[in-house]
Amino acid sequence: MEEIRYKEKMLYSRELHPDDTIVQAGEVSIGRGGFAVIAGPCSVESESQIMGIAEAVKEAGADMLRGGAYKPRTSPYDFQGLEAEGIKLLLKAKQETGLPIVSEIMDAGNLDLFEDIDVLQIGARNMQNFALLKAVGQTDKPVLIKRGISATYQEFLTAAEYVLSEGNPNVILCERGIRTFETYTRSTMDIAAVPVLKRLSHLPVLADPSHACGRSELVGSLALAATAAGADGLMIEVHSDPKLALSDGRQSLTPQQFAELMKKIRALTGALNA
Amino acid sequence: MEEIRYKEKMLYSRELHPDDTIVQAGEVSIGRGGFAVIAGPCSVESESQIMGIAEAVKEAGADMLRGGAYKPRTSPYDFQGLEAEGIKLLLKAKQETGLPIVSEIMDAGNLDLFEDIDVLQIGARNMQNFALLKAVGQTDKPVLIKRGISATYQEFLTAAEYVLSEGNPNVILCERGIRTFETYTRSTMDIAAVPVLKRLSHLPVLADPSHACGRSELVGSLALAATAAGADGLMIEVHSDPKLALSDGRQSLTPQQFAELMKKIRALTGALNA
Amino acid sequence: MEEIRYKEKMLYSRELHPDDTIVQAGEVSIGRGGFAVIAGPCSVESESQIMGIAEAVKEAGADMLRGGAYKPRTSPYDFQGLEAEGIKLLLKAKQETGLPIVSEIMDAGNLDLFEDIDVLQIGARNMQNFALLKAVGQTDKPVLIKRGISATYQEFLTAAEYVLSEGNPNVILCERGIRTFETYTRSTMDIAAVPVLKRLSHLPVLADPSHACGRSELVGSLALAATAAGADGLMIEVHSDPKLALSDGRQSLTPQQFAELMKKIRALTGALNA
Amino acid sequence: MEEIRYKEKMLYSRELHPDDTIVQAGEVSIGRGGFAVIAGPCSVESESQIMGIAEAVKEAGADMLRGGAYKPRTSPYDFQGLEAEGIKLLLKAKQETGLPIVSEIMDAGNLDLFEDIDVLQIGARNMQNFALLKAVGQTDKPVLIKRGISATYQEFLTAAEYVLSEGNPNVILCERGIRTFETYTRSTMDIAAVPVLKRLSHLPVLADPSHACGRSELVGSLALAATAAGADGLMIEVHSDPKLALSDGRQSLTPQQFAELMKKIRALTGALNA
Repeated sequence: MEEIRYKEKMLYSRELHPDDTIVQAGEVSIGRGGFAVIAGPCSVESESQIMGIAEAVKEAGADMLRGGAYKPRTSPYDFQGLEAEGIKLLLKAKQETGLPIVSEIMDAGNLDLFEDIDVLQIGARNMQNFALLKAVGQTDKPVLIKRGISATYQEFLTAAEYVLSEGNPNVILCERGIRTFETYTRSTMDIAAVPVLKRLSHLPVLADPSHACGRSELVGSLALAATAAGADGLMIEVHSDPKLALSDGRQSLTPQQFAELMKKIRALTGALNA
Repeated sequence: MEEIRYKEKMLYSRELHPDDTIVQAGEVSIGRGGFAVIAGPCSVESESQIMGIAEAVKEAGADMLRGGAYKPRTSPYDFQGLEAEGIKLLLKAKQETGLPIVSEIMDAGNLDLFEDIDVLQIGARNMQNFALLKAVGQTDKPVLIKRGISATYQEFLTAAEYVLSEGNPNVILCERGIRTFETYTRSTMDIAAVPVLKRLSHLPVLADPSHACGRSELVGSLALAATAAGADGLMIEVHSDPKLALSDGRQSLTPQQFAELMKKIRALTGALNA
Repeated sequence: MEEIRYKEKMLYSRELHPDDTIVQAGEVSIGRGGFAVIAGPCSVESESQIMGIAEAVKEAGADMLRGGAYKPRTSPYDFQGLEAEGIKLLLKAKQETGLPIVSEIMDAGNLDLFEDIDVLQIGARNMQNFALLKAVGQTDKPVLIKRGISATYQEFLTAAEYVLSEGNPNVILCERGIRTFETYTRSTMDIAAVPVLKRLSHLPVLADPSHACGRSELVGSLALAATAAGADGLMIEVHSDPKLALSDGRQSLTPQQFAELMKKIRALTGALNA
Repeated sequence: MEEIRYKEKMLYSRELHPDDTIVQAGEVSIGRGGFAVIAGPCSVESESQIMGIAEAVKEAGADMLRGGAYKPRTSPYDFQGLEAEGIKLLLKAKQETGLPIVSEIMDAGNLDLFEDIDVLQIGARNMQNFALLKAVGQTDKPVLIKRGISATYQEFLTAAEYVLSEGNPNVILCERGIRTFETYTRSTMDIAAVPVLKRLSHLPVLADPSHACGRSELVGSLALAATAAGADGLMIEVHSDPKLALSDGRQSLTPQQFAELMKKIRALTGALNA
């Protein structure tokens, strides 16, 4: 219904830029044939927690570490994250493991704190927080944008355009499930988003099966599906003790489950590239 | 799926606060039996435009004037609003007509600019922009929160709780349509939201039929429906020349159409209160 | 996405047939300014039940009696209706009260049994049961079609076209709520369907607030909203003892609640027509 | 919202029946590690069309042939299928190629005509046509049920229960996409349905990527995704000349595209089973 204004060629569009974009996060390349796995807990909870998980996911073959320091929570009485202290712990984990860090930023006022964070994550709830998109567009940091839970492909791509049009070309798209009538799963992974976004855009496309389904027993199947559908990588929640997690424990894999999944993912990417 | 943490009694809840809350915007009371109509253009476009519309809606019986100075637009190449200049024009219209002003704030950094704006609007896309909700919660200004296009009642109310829990009790809820599979209308007005929110909460509940349907020919029917369903007021887009509007012209009433609708609304509220 | 084939002018369309169609069910006229209220239990359960409710809704001012003899239930182990015995009881209630009867038909093979039923109801689940639509289209009985829970306006109207194109012009449309992400209510009443269908088609449009919300405490507000939005009538579930109802008790009004609602509806239709 | 009645253990449930069910269609086994591919045109259009496609898909490795003789179409003026003549042509193709046949039945009155059809398909629109489900439940033929476009997992499984509870254990489930707000694709493939249904039920689970996306250029990616997610097989539309197809040409693969996809599917199933 709503008409939107386009430039003749949008910066995200594959017509303008036929080759796949590669976004560089530290030494990790995301896009064009590489396959990047980001793993870690929903929230940073303590030094021992994040250190333990960081070591474990690295050993299992993860390329990057995720962890939330600022958490967008439905209720103001939910755990809101360790905030600045959480960022410090993530940087310590980076130092120890060498894994580049992905963490969500919710407020442009915190950009200074994220200076050494490798990838700025824009959460689904902020996908159309245009003030925030413009602010991260004025940096040169990789920005991982999660699809809003009811965003169309067009809206997702034009949200990316807000970052690109400010001069920052380092945008990564991430499908994380949309809201439908089905309530058995937390969200509904829109698997078609992977090939559609790859066709419409040159930007790398990841998938987050953990948020998409909200149930650890389904994460593996969705991770393999997204890989087979052509995703450039995955973001997966891992927690050493999911039952005690301060957020999203229900959807977290244990490090051992994650390690087993990584083997299957490697077998699959091998077969697909053969 | 997602479990959320509640206080024993949420501040928004009717259990805690059985009487209807009245929010005062200048001399206009919103809630508990009053019926407040907010009208005006989607965007402030020029002095003559906003002045002309302000006079017209006042004459037709509107209680407050709306107008966007900062516009959240899907594409970065869409008209983004007159920004600070738009705020000035709104304040001029307030001076001329005496109508209190409702305008959307997208960035906590602009709070100073909104000092004389009577009601801060949080748009649907920012309903879970928690940094912004906390910031407006630290003021004492009336805050009108629009329901996110895929927000459940629970999420809508806990978004309000972010403002209330910071100490600002002046929250107004506004149903403006949700996203469904139906594409004939821009959104689908969830008319049940009106009685549901009135039951669960003591906060005033308005409806915005213009955004809900996106078609001027349907606005009247939805406005009457929301009134009959028990809404505490309406927000309606009016433009002197809808075809030339820089945004949302398709859903705007002309001043004359608005005046005719106001007569029907008065007849209806009369019958309902009789 | 799906292209569909149209006749130059569809039989349902207002372009072809500018005047409102009036469907005659016994002595009750549905459409064009009349306002018809159909009330009764979800299922016929026993002679005393249907007789008692029939008398009560007649006294409160209902124009027609509804009651299910064949029930489409999600599970095969749910109560499936009294079937042929239920039809007999409905006809007895018709004899006693003079109220025309509306009842759902699920199988064309039962058409003989429905010979004295005044209005054949096609349930939401069968809205695209084309074999059934064609079969009722070959009768001359009034056919009330409920909108499928995820049917677009276009699909709803082309379902009606199946009946019309077989030669039966007596079609009544009924909005009964669509499926969305919101789970607090059973369905989401799409109030805009009322004015949209009235614009696109000359057929009468009713609303069923009981199925739309699934909660008796909301039925009144939705009934008034649909009336204000321009519906040609309402279908409302009434049960003498909702807690003991074999189906849909949660959404049924008591006869007393129904009588009180009828007074408000009359006040509203009076004000709207004044 | 709606409470449904269950038997202590539903016949579809894995609790009752821990081992995977294998449904036998001619010599093809569906379920438990086998991987069955059903391919063919949306509609049977002519003898040369169905014969040509049947030979081509057989050569490419398809296990069964699909083709619609009775077509559920949104508009009564759309092509409704060749009906009885279409069934004859399907049986001729079966004779020539040896491929078992899957075809949709819309009316229990046609069961005789389907006597030599190997698998009765219940289309998405008829998923809750309980009269039809009961009728096919009284045969011993394999029944492939497509998920309704807005059916929950629970509703899908209880629809299967209607067939099982009549005594027919040969039920195959097929995910074919659900209706969401996204309109770029025809439906949204709910990839999580595959592992969820496999966990909740012992019945075989297929996926239909063609209807799920409605765009031939996406069919391959979704087919691979469903395979990786654990589906027991696929149903894919193939047409020798998609642009001339009388229905659903936009989503049909050419025989050559299908042959290439079959190679990838084999590589994938090989890697997954290794």
